[in-house]
Amino acid sequence: MEYLKNDSVKLSDDEMSVIIIDQTILPNDLVFKKLSVREDFFEAIKNLRVRGAPAIGICAGYAMYVLSLSINAVNGEEFLKEILNIGEYLCSSRPTAADLSAAVKKCIAAAKENISSPIEKIREILKCTAINIHKENIEMCRKISEYGLSLVKNGDGILTHCNAGPLAASRYGTGLGTLFLGKERGYEFHVYVDETRPLLQGSRLTAYELDNAGIDVHLICDNMASSVMKAGLINAVFVGCDRVAANGDTANKIGTSGAAIIAKHYGVPFYVFCPSTTIDLSCKSGKDIPIEFRDGEEIRSMFFSRPVAPEVKCYDPAFDVTEENLITAIITEKGICRRPYEKSLGELFGK
Amino acid sequence: MEYLKNDSVKLSDDEMSVIIIDQTILPNDLVFKKLSVREDFFEAIKNLRVRGAPAIGICAGYAMYVLSLSINAVNGEEFLKEILNIGEYLCSSRPTAADLSAAVKKCIAAAKENISSPIEKIREILKCTAINIHKENIEMCRKISEYGLSLVKNGDGILTHCNAGPLAASRYGTGLGTLFLGKERGYEFHVYVDETRPLLQGSRLTAYELDNAGIDVHLICDNMASSVMKAGLINAVFVGCDRVAANGDTANKIGTSGAAIIAKHYGVPFYVFCPSTTIDLSCKSGKDIPIEFRDGEEIRSMFFSRPVAPEVKCYDPAFDVTEENLITAIITEKGICRRPYEKSLGELFGK
Repeated sequence: MEYLKNDSVKLSDDEMSVIIIDQTILPNDLVFKKLSVREDFFEAIKNLRVRGAPAIGICAGYAMYVLSLSINAVNGEEFLKEILNIGEYLCSSRPTAADLSAAVKKCIAAAKENISSPIEKIREILKCTAINIHKENIEMCRKISEYGLSLVKNGDGILTHCNAGPLAASRYGTGLGTLFLGKERGYEFHVYVDETRPLLQGSRLTAYELDNAGIDVHLICDNMASSVMKAGLINAVFVGCDRVAANGDTANKIGTSGAAIIAKHYGVPFYVFCPSTTIDLSCKSGKDIPIEFRDGEEIRSMFFSRPVAPEVKCYDPAFDVTEENLITAIITEKGICRRPYEKSLGELFGK
Repeated sequence: MEYLKNDSVKLSDDEMSVIIIDQTILPNDLVFKKLSVREDFFEAIKNLRVRGAPAIGICAGYAMYVLSLSINAVNGEEFLKEILNIGEYLCSSRPTAADLSAAVKKCIAAAKENISSPIEKIREILKCTAINIHKENIEMCRKISEYGLSLVKNGDGILTHCNAGPLAASRYGTGLGTLFLGKERGYEFHVYVDETRPLLQGSRLTAYELDNAGIDVHLICDNMASSVMKAGLINAVFVGCDRVAANGDTANKIGTSGAAIIAKHYGVPFYVFCPSTTIDLSCKSGKDIPIEFRDGEEIRSMFFSRPVAPEVKCYDPAFDVTEENLITAIITEKGICRRPYEKSLGELFGK
């Protein structure tokens, strides 16, 4: 896996900028993008060039350091004021992700603690803070993946939504980490990946990452989850998360809650993979989590003509069957039928 | 509505071919396509140029007549043999839709009944049979729409999946007929349309049809159904169907069963609009309904760069919240948390 040799986010060799894998261009090309000024970071986060809660957190940590290099301040107070501005600006790029504001807060706290130090020293502390955020993420992904592996068995079918793999985090990733770690240990998983409209993170990133690692993958449209579960192909659903409230309500990519409802219907366990940075105990429940609305252009326009790596297999039923106990009424030109349908349909249409 | 002046399927003026609206080119262009030889019909049905169970039935009826014009037969027996071949060939273009085989069967039965008549007379009878299939469809759509209107009230929010409008049938359509009929009578519905991956019938056809008729429409991605229901925007789900078994199990466009499970979770009624031609009492349950699998190319390739008419509004949340009672476990780097999460998350992460 070419990109696994590289982190999805890292500090440049000269330590003056941040290098990211531009996730909007995958799977067609592996392009690295250099971010140097604050507008670069804002644009890259806003437009999902860097995405996945942990990866955004890592990026924001390095951004705080890199952007601090161009602050002209005569003392710590002035420096801190600028750092607060930068942090606020970065946080406004995506309001829902908790890792973004957590990383920014950590950097600001480190700067505040050292406000009386020379500015060069505060910059050095910001760099260490950013590197630590990155290191902690790698260790966190490994631990989460170990716990995940304890919940499944060799040969299991797994459904996943959006992308919580190495690109979204570091090394193994969160929601997908179990699959990569399992692969290393000889597990054979059969993974079904929701394409994840509108931005197709499943098609472009998850299917690509898993297929590259030699894991058995089928891509499906989001609305096929019910079909694959009904067919008995799924033993567990794995998702990442963007923010978890104190009561366990979990914000994640649009479509996650629908997949969870369908999983419950079929008795399939639904697992959320969650770095502790994503847990926000200040939110009592999901009602307290702000949900970002976007402008619809990504629904109107299919801006990827070929979002899927050509070798990725697809599972593509044209229809599904809705079980009668889910149907309130069947409306025909002869009248409205209700349950039990054997009786109501039989009376109107039997011979 | 320009296309409503035209039927989506009709016999050409010279009665030598069938004229369809090519539904694969909407909403960008309104293109009529002439079908004359059997391969034209097969291709148009297979590739969804004509689609929607009733419209396919109407098309198949006219196809049986038009294709009968080129049969060279010396007697009724020979003619019937050819008609049977044509019918079998047409039916193989889409195995799931019941209206297709129902229309073909009706034409074959009419030919059989008149096997001893002169061949010109049998052809005339095929034409009348096809015209009757079409007329019956129009009347059926009106009746279904009236029944549908009895189930909703002015101001209701309606979610719909795929396309069961005028293009899919005749005049009002089935699943959408209630909305068009209601509009004529001064009802103001607020309609949320699933884009309906992979072929985007919701984006391309339903949103276009409803918006053209002045009905309030928002387009959503299929995976947003849970969000709009949770937000209280939906009072009922309306869908068409491709085949209904004796027990009420209903085959419809992929994604319908997922929408039904989600509707049940939120207590939203789920209505299937069903012309009697779609009811197949020979199928005891959904297990007896064959499901067509396609080759995945339509998932891999986004063959519409702009599938949505530019004036259509979109509802575009980037995230949703999965309620804690749907989550089997939350896996963190500190351990696996289970319900009640206030306790398990609080123990690991509280201060």
